[in-house]
Amino acid sequence: MVEAFDAVDLIRAKRDRGELSTEEIRWLVDAYTRGYVAPEQMSAMTMAIFLNGMNRREVRDLTLAMIDTGERMDFSKLGKPTVDKHSTGGVGDKITLPLMPLVASFGVAVPQLSGRGLGHTGGTLDKLESIPGWRADLSAAEMFAQLRDCGGVVCAAGASLAPADKKLYALRDVTGTVEAIPLIASSIMSKKLAEGTGALVLDVKFGSGAFMQDIERSRELARTLVELGTDAGVATSALLTNMNVPLGRAIGNANEVRESVEVLSGAGPADVRELTIELAREMLRLVGQPDADVEAALDDGRALAVWNATVRAQGGDPEAALPTPRETEQVRADRDGILVRQEALPFGIAAWRLGAGRARADDPVIHAAGIDLKVKPGDAVKAGDVLWELHTDEPDRFPRALAALEGAWQIGEPGDPVHDGGPLIAERIS
Amino acid sequence: MVEAFDAVDLIRAKRDRGELSTEEIRWLVDAYTRGYVAPEQMSAMTMAIFLNGMNRREVRDLTLAMIDTGERMDFSKLGKPTVDKHSTGGVGDKITLPLMPLVASFGVAVPQLSGRGLGHTGGTLDKLESIPGWRADLSAAEMFAQLRDCGGVVCAAGASLAPADKKLYALRDVTGTVEAIPLIASSIMSKKLAEGTGALVLDVKFGSGAFMQDIERSRELARTLVELGTDAGVATSALLTNMNVPLGRAIGNANEVRESVEVLSGAGPADVRELTIELAREMLRLVGQPDADVEAALDDGRALAVWNATVRAQGGDPEAALPTPRETEQVRADRDGILVRQEALPFGIAAWRLGAGRARADDPVIHAAGIDLKVKPGDAVKAGDVLWELHTDEPDRFPRALAALEGAWQIGEPGDPVHDGGPLIAERIS
Repeated sequence: MVEAFDAVDLIRAKRDRGELSTEEIRWLVDAYTRGYVAPEQMSAMTMAIFLNGMNRREVRDLTLAMIDTGERMDFSKLGKPTVDKHSTGGVGDKITLPLMPLVASFGVAVPQLSGRGLGHTGGTLDKLESIPGWRADLSAAEMFAQLRDCGGVVCAAGASLAPADKKLYALRDVTGTVEAIPLIASSIMSKKLAEGTGALVLDVKFGSGAFMQDIERSRELARTLVELGTDAGVATSALLTNMNVPLGRAIGNANEVRESVEVLSGAGPADVRELTIELAREMLRLVGQPDADVEAALDDGRALAVWNATVRAQGGDPEAALPTPRETEQVRADRDGILVRQEALPFGIAAWRLGAGRARADDPVIHAAGIDLKVKPGDAVKAGDVLWELHTDEPDRFPRALAALEGAWQIGEPGDPVHDGGPLIAERIS
Repeated sequence: MVEAFDAVDLIRAKRDRGELSTEEIRWLVDAYTRGYVAPEQMSAMTMAIFLNGMNRREVRDLTLAMIDTGERMDFSKLGKPTVDKHSTGGVGDKITLPLMPLVASFGVAVPQLSGRGLGHTGGTLDKLESIPGWRADLSAAEMFAQLRDCGGVVCAAGASLAPADKKLYALRDVTGTVEAIPLIASSIMSKKLAEGTGALVLDVKFGSGAFMQDIERSRELARTLVELGTDAGVATSALLTNMNVPLGRAIGNANEVRESVEVLSGAGPADVRELTIELAREMLRLVGQPDADVEAALDDGRALAVWNATVRAQGGDPEAALPTPRETEQVRADRDGILVRQEALPFGIAAWRLGAGRARADDPVIHAAGIDLKVKPGDAVKAGDVLWELHTDEPDRFPRALAALEGAWQIGEPGDPVHDGGPLIAERIS
């Protein structure tokens, strides 16, 4: 075929702070996906985008071009509104698990395509796979049937959605261009828009355990995502939420499922319940139910009933015992006082080192591995109290996990300030 | 082996405007040359260098690291000083041909490693290969013997000198990062320093026919090159010279050899003679002969004698007829007046389209192809006078060559300003 553009011309244009046209961006993404534009050319382009940026129109064109390299799902025949949530990832972030059935219990469809974890933030599918029998890989027909019958589904995103994104992400990962906002935003939104959801709420995290530590950068990402969704005709809003402290009391896989079921039973840690409720309210607001009583659905068992149905629909047994760890180590307080600091990132790294996460994409995870937090910032402790329990099946993992926690927490005097980075939900952007 | 650094860390450091350490740069260049650092990683790095720059120490480290990937030549046993010249390339730039024998005639060694042309600027080796029998590929021993016996040599740079530069240049060429000053400077100087010359004069061109049009950027490149040479212990200076107008009256291969022999015989176009003399004075100044009478050596046949000896030493016959073109087209003046404009770049492109240069590295050149300029800016012309003659062996090349010249020249009234971009030699930097 005769190529419409020359890759070097486009790289030089972006290098020199120029704007790429819709046609140029469409050609670039298509030609990269079919291998005509070489990886070394695309990585030079992504570095130029990282350093010189893209405007709103270019980010939209990039997102749409990535969608066009694959299939689009269509839930319009379901006969009910669809709404999805995406989180940029954090330590102890199991919110999808209670949120999906909670929102589905209001008669809307929640198609939650998720990924596996890589690095310290864990993956929703890894957590759910600790339920005996549960399977993540559904066909499009199975997914459609489950949305119709149960209202919600959490499953793996197939390779047919936005394959350009997968190829580009792998390139960015080895070339130091992951953190560019136009590239993050187009990566997230290409998959969510290809999934065909009618509304979308983004949980954009900031703080030490988040992908972006800085609230200003998180706000910029949230605005870009909301603009992208809105421009594509999807009702979109975002919450900026605090990830300086682990979310909830469980970091891992099986223990996060347990905690999610607690929340679905009207109990569970206050922060997990609060964020689940606020995200559910936002999702339901976008599909025309601003006054839905989401707390009642957690407290009266409606959300839990949807959870049980969806777990069963995907081959899992919601009554089955979850994996328990072979080995546990306890960390105890060496003095009386108040827990004034508990930093998300080191706790995430410790859980990862215990085997809850993976270093390479094809590593297995240990489903029973992780950390249970017995105290949270602001809690009083006495010398000898258990602060947290570390779990794994492979005890030689303990030393490096414990090393990650050194300096990651602090016991202070009553009245000392508690360093938790402020309120859980900082802002709403829509 | 255990790698000392991670490529992604180094890319991120330069991306975030950081400085790379000596050890980091040495590792990066070595790991890229042996294939551990992937092309897509190196191209992201070169784009980050393009946009965020490198300081003087980093450029020196990059240059020395590229030299260390190959061999270094050593002329210390010659028993005489060595001095070389490098030009950033221009239209009609045959200065190496008269300059090498002129300087060598003063008892210094001139080891002139050169390249073949790509694009509109032509290559010194292509020009010399129009001499029947002349060969560019000499062994190190042949080169040494010729420097000892004749005083000068122009030959191909072997693949053993700075192989990292060759690999990196090919990458930059397809990823839009050729024009970065730290990368240009380290590319030029890695080869010149590996060649082992004791002194070096740089002819850094500016203007429409130069690699860098802008005099400020050319000045920045010249300063960077002079700093690099000086830091490496090589006496280095630079002339900033005007490339808005073709140099001399011949653009091509065989016709440029003819013009060079005219200059070596005490005649030739004024601009070619002037630049040859000024570069020779600068080279001889650097090796301790500031008062050498270079004009006399052109006028009394001493330089021509060295030329004849070096051509013979490389298998060529200085008396043999040079190739003549099969086809010639003449462009004539359509009015009386003064030639007020003659733009270097379009004339270079026209000669290239006639077959004097190559589009791909392995294309052959047509030795008789090129352009002879019968008038130069400021000359009076009459309607019907021949302005220039276009030569080639393949007449279907004429239309595109003539098209390149459209709008590239202008005949004005007596008294109109002549657009030649100012004096030939704008500045000396040392």
